[in-house]
Amino acid sequence: MTTAPRPHTQADLRRRNLAAVLHAVAGGGPASRAAVAGRIGLTRAAVSTLVDELLGAGLLVEQGPGRSGAVGRPGTVLALSDSGPCGLGAEIGVDHLAVCAVDLRGRVRARVAVDSANRDSEPGPVLARLAELVRLVTGRVGAAGLRPAGLCVAVPGLVARDAPTVVRSPNLGWGLTRLDSLAGRLGTADGTLPVGADNEANLGALAELWLGGHEPAPLDVLHVSAEIGIGAAVLVGGRLLRGERGFAGELGHVPVRPRGRACGCGGRGCLEQYAGEEAVLRAAGLDPARVAAERPGPGARVGLLAERAAAGDRTVLRVLRSAGADLGVALTGAVSLLDPQAVVLGGALARLAPWLLPAAEQELDRRMTGRPGVLVSRLGPDGPLLGAAHSVIRAVLDDPPTGRR
Amino acid sequence: MTTAPRPHTQADLRRRNLAAVLHAVAGGGPASRAAVAGRIGLTRAAVSTLVDELLGAGLLVEQGPGRSGAVGRPGTVLALSDSGPCGLGAEIGVDHLAVCAVDLRGRVRARVAVDSANRDSEPGPVLARLAELVRLVTGRVGAAGLRPAGLCVAVPGLVARDAPTVVRSPNLGWGLTRLDSLAGRLGTADGTLPVGADNEANLGALAELWLGGHEPAPLDVLHVSAEIGIGAAVLVGGRLLRGERGFAGELGHVPVRPRGRACGCGGRGCLEQYAGEEAVLRAAGLDPARVAAERPGPGARVGLLAERAAAGDRTVLRVLRSAGADLGVALTGAVSLLDPQAVVLGGALARLAPWLLPAAEQELDRRMTGRPGVLVSRLGPDGPLLGAAHSVIRAVLDDPPTGRR
Repeated sequence: MTTAPRPHTQADLRRRNLAAVLHAVAGGGPASRAAVAGRIGLTRAAVSTLVDELLGAGLLVEQGPGRSGAVGRPGTVLALSDSGPCGLGAEIGVDHLAVCAVDLRGRVRARVAVDSANRDSEPGPVLARLAELVRLVTGRVGAAGLRPAGLCVAVPGLVARDAPTVVRSPNLGWGLTRLDSLAGRLGTADGTLPVGADNEANLGALAELWLGGHEPAPLDVLHVSAEIGIGAAVLVGGRLLRGERGFAGELGHVPVRPRGRACGCGGRGCLEQYAGEEAVLRAAGLDPARVAAERPGPGARVGLLAERAAAGDRTVLRVLRSAGADLGVALTGAVSLLDPQAVVLGGALARLAPWLLPAAEQELDRRMTGRPGVLVSRLGPDGPLLGAAHSVIRAVLDDPPTGRR
Repeated sequence: MTTAPRPHTQADLRRRNLAAVLHAVAGGGPASRAAVAGRIGLTRAAVSTLVDELLGAGLLVEQGPGRSGAVGRPGTVLALSDSGPCGLGAEIGVDHLAVCAVDLRGRVRARVAVDSANRDSEPGPVLARLAELVRLVTGRVGAAGLRPAGLCVAVPGLVARDAPTVVRSPNLGWGLTRLDSLAGRLGTADGTLPVGADNEANLGALAELWLGGHEPAPLDVLHVSAEIGIGAAVLVGGRLLRGERGFAGELGHVPVRPRGRACGCGGRGCLEQYAGEEAVLRAAGLDPARVAAERPGPGARVGLLAERAAAGDRTVLRVLRSAGADLGVALTGAVSLLDPQAVVLGGALARLAPWLLPAAEQELDRRMTGRPGVLVSRLGPDGPLLGAAHSVIRAVLDDPPTGRR
């Protein structure tokens, strides 16, 4: 027998309904109490009590009279506060650091990014630089009356979210690295800002779900992205499939040529050996290390490939076609298992999509009788950073901190 | 933005807590009202009200005084009723039909199975024979005071569960086939028994979760099974991942030799071409059609392979080793994507596990640095039938039909 459902208490009910009110305003836009009650199917009286609590906590604000053309006495309109809590997102990339702040309405209120050579780095100095950027952003939004509700850090690697701890990041060269030490260095009043972290591919997939502009947003998605390696995130019903050890989504290590090239993971013929950034650069006759030295900064190497492909470089076009075909084989296996509504190419792959996608889709069409569409992310490399900041905002909307528990 | 959470009403709360009480007795065994209250963390008074409603609906029964050694006045003990609702499960196999009835306590109270050549059959006569078996089982358990709460049919193919309808079953040779017509032919008083259906691999995976005897039962599982094709079911947090079109779990069509043999699905090098029952029989020099004619009945062809392997037949051993290696390649891809707690070999594959598993595990070990264990189902070919009957029981436990809504 599996676990019995947990019984619900009146307090659970209240918290869930506070969240329903906040989501109704977030999803449907500013509205009167009566309109909110209509949206969520609770009585006007019940909604009024919940709204009072949310106003008191500074999560909702009242705006002047609503639509002047409406019949009857114009009521005040409820909106999410733009000077209450904000979410801080941070990204530790191989080539850069970035931090942003997003308010409850989902607007980016401050953002900084700097080039930073983080590959094979010591975690200490990198985290010190990151803390400095966070203080900068916090200072800016503090002047506008916003106070951070939490910080979420996007990391290219395996993350234990509860600690939060980077378990390992081959690209950064980091082993076990705790991130909770950041909390005391962020310049907040009491040094206790909640700090979270997640894998960049996961946060990129969530950003696409929340901000991708798809109507309705597909909830069952294979989101493929890349920085150096090839990663993927799987959304099931709008929630991340994380796996037993947090390893889910390792599309880069799906065998596509089972008797092929040995891979750093110990396997053979993994997708990353044919469609990863380094493999593609080498196949195009370019030395990854030299290119990295000549073109530092995020996305520069992928940018070089995109430039050459756009200019009609036959070698690069052939190499990207071949990588696309291998990607198509891996996607065939993944789609057979998951049957998602959509496949999304995000991160650096979005930029190479014009050249990878035709060959990948040709493989899918050859191998499958029906298949989901392959979409290209509009957020591209911004996904993980935005996903990190918005994950803090979502946590506020899902369990509004009103002081009462 | 994604959908807002639905607010909860007092009625939702009551229904959830009725389920919590019923699950507490189902999972923890017979207990007094006070012990149930302790198990689920509600007050004794709240539990008493819920229990009265469940007693009235015939879902719980009171048994004589509890442990006589206990201190104080012995209270009555609550148990699940063994003469209330029962779940009917049915299975339409390629070679057989089976029906069983399971009571709320999870005991099989009646079961019939008959050989039946259903491959490339007309649905009408098959469903008529199935209805006859259901009437037989219903009659038997009716004499013991049990009344069917519903029927769930396990089908080797793609099922639209809401209708319920077989969308297509290549092995049965069925196209679109509605199963709700069964309801009127089952011999129930008013001809309105709720009829459901699901894919056999899905029901086999649920049966393993509920009845597999693993403590604690793994909730994130890749459950691989086979009748003629190779199917899989993916459990995420104890729930089936169904996919957008209900196609999730098509492990048989994961490419394991991408430039290899053409497959009936239109693809190339699919796992089924190397590890499917027909492929294995052919590779062992056996004609699948002739073997089927000589050995009718469920599991006969797999039985032949198992007999020969057990007798040391070198050709069969070599063929099963090779099939196991290809299975290992497909599992590497699936485990990389899903990172499950466990892989389970069920159905016909369970019987061949002694010969498939070593080669499959060797591939996994070569290709992955850490990986989940591969378990062999103890339910084997009984899984889908038991899963079907238990899914009806689970629906009763999850939303107890007490008459009040």
